[in-house]
Amino acid sequence: MKFITEKILDQVICKRPLNSHKGDYGKILLIAGSSQMGGAALMATSATVHSGAGLVTCATSATNKTALHTLIPEAMFLDYTDQAALVEKISSADVIVVGPGLAQGQTTIEILELLFLEIRPTTALIIDGTALTLLAKYPKLQTQLPKCPLILTPHQMEWQRLSQIKITDQNDPTKNQDVQQKLHATVVLKKFQSEIYHQNGTISQLTIGGPYMATGGMGDTLTGIIAAFLGQFKQVERSLALEAAVYLHSAVASELAQTRYVVLPTILSSQIPFFMARYSK
Amino acid sequence: MKFITEKILDQVICKRPLNSHKGDYGKILLIAGSSQMGGAALMATSATVHSGAGLVTCATSATNKTALHTLIPEAMFLDYTDQAALVEKISSADVIVVGPGLAQGQTTIEILELLFLEIRPTTALIIDGTALTLLAKYPKLQTQLPKCPLILTPHQMEWQRLSQIKITDQNDPTKNQDVQQKLHATVVLKKFQSEIYHQNGTISQLTIGGPYMATGGMGDTLTGIIAAFLGQFKQVERSLALEAAVYLHSAVASELAQTRYVVLPTILSSQIPFFMARYSK
Amino acid sequence: MKFITEKILDQVICKRPLNSHKGDYGKILLIAGSSQMGGAALMATSATVHSGAGLVTCATSATNKTALHTLIPEAMFLDYTDQAALVEKISSADVIVVGPGLAQGQTTIEILELLFLEIRPTTALIIDGTALTLLAKYPKLQTQLPKCPLILTPHQMEWQRLSQIKITDQNDPTKNQDVQQKLHATVVLKKFQSEIYHQNGTISQLTIGGPYMATGGMGDTLTGIIAAFLGQFKQVERSLALEAAVYLHSAVASELAQTRYVVLPTILSSQIPFFMARYSK
Amino acid sequence: MKFITEKILDQVICKRPLNSHKGDYGKILLIAGSSQMGGAALMATSATVHSGAGLVTCATSATNKTALHTLIPEAMFLDYTDQAALVEKISSADVIVVGPGLAQGQTTIEILELLFLEIRPTTALIIDGTALTLLAKYPKLQTQLPKCPLILTPHQMEWQRLSQIKITDQNDPTKNQDVQQKLHATVVLKKFQSEIYHQNGTISQLTIGGPYMATGGMGDTLTGIIAAFLGQFKQVERSLALEAAVYLHSAVASELAQTRYVVLPTILSSQIPFFMARYSK
Repeated sequence: MKFITEKILDQVICKRPLNSHKGDYGKILLIAGSSQMGGAALMATSATVHSGAGLVTCATSATNKTALHTLIPEAMFLDYTDQAALVEKISSADVIVVGPGLAQGQTTIEILELLFLEIRPTTALIIDGTALTLLAKYPKLQTQLPKCPLILTPHQMEWQRLSQIKITDQNDPTKNQDVQQKLHATVVLKKFQSEIYHQNGTISQLTIGGPYMATGGMGDTLTGIIAAFLGQFKQVERSLALEAAVYLHSAVASELAQTRYVVLPTILSSQIPFFMARYSK
Repeated sequence: MKFITEKILDQVICKRPLNSHKGDYGKILLIAGSSQMGGAALMATSATVHSGAGLVTCATSATNKTALHTLIPEAMFLDYTDQAALVEKISSADVIVVGPGLAQGQTTIEILELLFLEIRPTTALIIDGTALTLLAKYPKLQTQLPKCPLILTPHQMEWQRLSQIKITDQNDPTKNQDVQQKLHATVVLKKFQSEIYHQNGTISQLTIGGPYMATGGMGDTLTGIIAAFLGQFKQVERSLALEAAVYLHSAVASELAQTRYVVLPTILSSQIPFFMARYSK
Repeated sequence: MKFITEKILDQVICKRPLNSHKGDYGKILLIAGSSQMGGAALMATSATVHSGAGLVTCATSATNKTALHTLIPEAMFLDYTDQAALVEKISSADVIVVGPGLAQGQTTIEILELLFLEIRPTTALIIDGTALTLLAKYPKLQTQLPKCPLILTPHQMEWQRLSQIKITDQNDPTKNQDVQQKLHATVVLKKFQSEIYHQNGTISQLTIGGPYMATGGMGDTLTGIIAAFLGQFKQVERSLALEAAVYLHSAVASELAQTRYVVLPTILSSQIPFFMARYSK
Repeated sequence: MKFITEKILDQVICKRPLNSHKGDYGKILLIAGSSQMGGAALMATSATVHSGAGLVTCATSATNKTALHTLIPEAMFLDYTDQAALVEKISSADVIVVGPGLAQGQTTIEILELLFLEIRPTTALIIDGTALTLLAKYPKLQTQLPKCPLILTPHQMEWQRLSQIKITDQNDPTKNQDVQQKLHATVVLKKFQSEIYHQNGTISQLTIGGPYMATGGMGDTLTGIIAAFLGQFKQVERSLALEAAVYLHSAVASELAQTRYVVLPTILSSQIPFFMARYSK
């Protein structure tokens, strides 16, 4: 078990080349949010934009369009029921997030099937929230998982559902790793001192973060940061960019918690540009 | 009559255990806001999130969804006309708030009846605003009040309607207590130097706060703080968590009023995390 | 011609009595905003709330509800096509604003007629924006003006339309006063160094303010401040509260302009509570 | 090739005459945003207001009204499907922006044709985003371009489409200038060290700015600043006001980037009033 330290930020967050443009910093597509759950999509999208992604699109329910534009006008909106437009975005994205705040019904299953079919083999796919729950519920969906780089970001209950490992047994890394390897995916197991199970067999662990992060939307925010880092820091291996994203999320929260009892996800996101600036000299 | 002092914050606001997660800090459901009155729901929900609650859902009119997500994306939305979803949330919540900004018609009465029927006996129920007015208007509703812990948060006019004690007579604590005991509920009587009538017969009084708080939405904000404190500080008696919430509300306002002529409820809520941080060392 | 000085703020902005509540600081109703013009209603309402009004309702098009609740959740919403609810609010308000951002059609004329009929004789009525334009266009409406205290707040073009005095001739106070007296209204003529024509025949002039205020919405913001001051500072004559509001508006802008090239109305409103705090010691 | 320096800000940003009003600082109309793309319209409009324009109207899809009013209530809304109202605004505007976030369909083509027909010969027209793409796609539209002052603001891909000059060949100013002269338009070619091709044959180049600006919406923000500067600084030649706008955009971003890894367009806009204040002494 390797511990992730602040050094990862120096390794990953680089000074940007002068002659570069927004296309160089990732085309990110988030498929997230439903008519009932909109906040998850908004928080993930806001985190992605604040973390430096170049072009961010949120494919969501039309009922979330106004809140998205008001909260984070930098992101583009896509009505996820517009299948043709969705396929076009899927096939041109560098990184795709699917899951935060999606509904559990048939519509989402169809979106997942479409996504798994249309995603390019080089596009990184981050599977989170409801998408993880559906993968656990419908094993057939697991067989349809695409061959592209996969990152799963379950919290402990989602991991229990997907891996059949009870939360009390998740302290055993070999058990987690056994399932993770069968999934052919990187797994970020979100918990006190989160663990990353890499596809090459190494395991990394976070040692920062704390209970001031125990608030709804914190996971969606992490997912957004991961997406931005994968889309933007292509000069390092994907596993390093992922570790940096996971570290940054808790490092920002930890610093903000010095003066706050709880850290709200939207506040965390707003501070990311300041924090990242320290590591790009 | 006991006076509530700053010590209550040291007693109640604790350092969070390192290995804890959002489920440990309360599942709060607010049933609030109508197509005409949305702000009350938004302010109560925002206060709940900023006060450290783990998972917050606002069941409201669909016309408030966009404003809710934009103002406080950390909270989840529920359309309160979706009865099945509402029942599910009611039966899994740790703390429920009902009342701020609800309309006075039949729909609200039906929501109240459903709530009184479905709430678990261990769930704390905070009754505020329109729900208090309806309880006063329809004595039959009073007979349907559930056996769970009840907290009523009337201002003086609402208390007059419910207790039949005229505002001018509300200076007599024994009169207020007499009705409160018959209601089998804790009563927070909101006024200059608010009073708390506990179910064990003790009465506590606030001695801070002031007229800079005399603005629409201040009461909704208090209700949200109470909900978050009851859901989160389970290591102390409920009566202490309630007193801490009531004290915090006025303490934050009082500090902000040193530089402001009036304190807006949304500004108050945004400052709660900073204030709470001082008491958890 | 009297000049309004900073002293007016000391005279009018008083320390609030400890034992007071939101009902003591004015029930303000703004009838403003249409499906095309929403911002004027939002800015006037936000100014009213930030200036210390106790209970603020914005009667507007339903298309403005979400923006209103998001921007200033402290204010209540009323759909102005709900005539019964509108009449109820009209007959209980202490101060009413009519005009900012209303459409010019028949609907607005009907609202004006209803308002003129239902307003109580003690309620102060501030007529601004589109309502002034309609008064100029339909002399019949002028004959229906109610007997309550009237304050008109035209900019120079609106005053030209209403008074038939060309802008170039408005430098002559006696001409303005002549028309103003016939209208039985106080007139705030908004221009470089605005003038107030009081009903008792005195004229006051502002000597502060500047071109950093030359941005859409500045007038709506002034209207909101006037409403809040009339509703709240009842210990002084209405003419003094009006002068204080007019002075405050430019004084805040002037201070903010020390570091800004232009002062946005929403920024101005957000700073009002800090500014007012200096004068209530 | 002339380099644009900070001196341009001293030359252009002047102290406003005391006796002036919002009409003196430009009536700006932005035709922007569609039901799918709203953020571009919002960011361009917000930049225009923050840069000191007097009266700003955003003609956009009705689906963007609420986000517009919430984000920047100072701007007026117009439903761009209301042809009569649009024509009225077109024929009274001092500066018109067309393009950011418009859809590519027939509706937009019809809006462009209407605009080209109805715009006054003295009104400056800034063509950006989708409008540039459509000009490239439909050469017939190019023949309909009005005789008013034209400013095109393509990024390199848009310029390639419109000019048929490949991005790799755009380093040759004479090639760019050749096409620009045939278009009878000023061209702001947005890239690393943007270039301005003036109609009199001179070429200016920016030497500030950087990759912290490589985020969606940065171009829309520049467009908004240009519109405000053309509408407001009529005491200098249009070419100078344009250069000042282009310089200001990057200068603000550059300063904000001293503490931020990326600069979000909405943050940039909010800081413009402070920055402009330094140059008007």
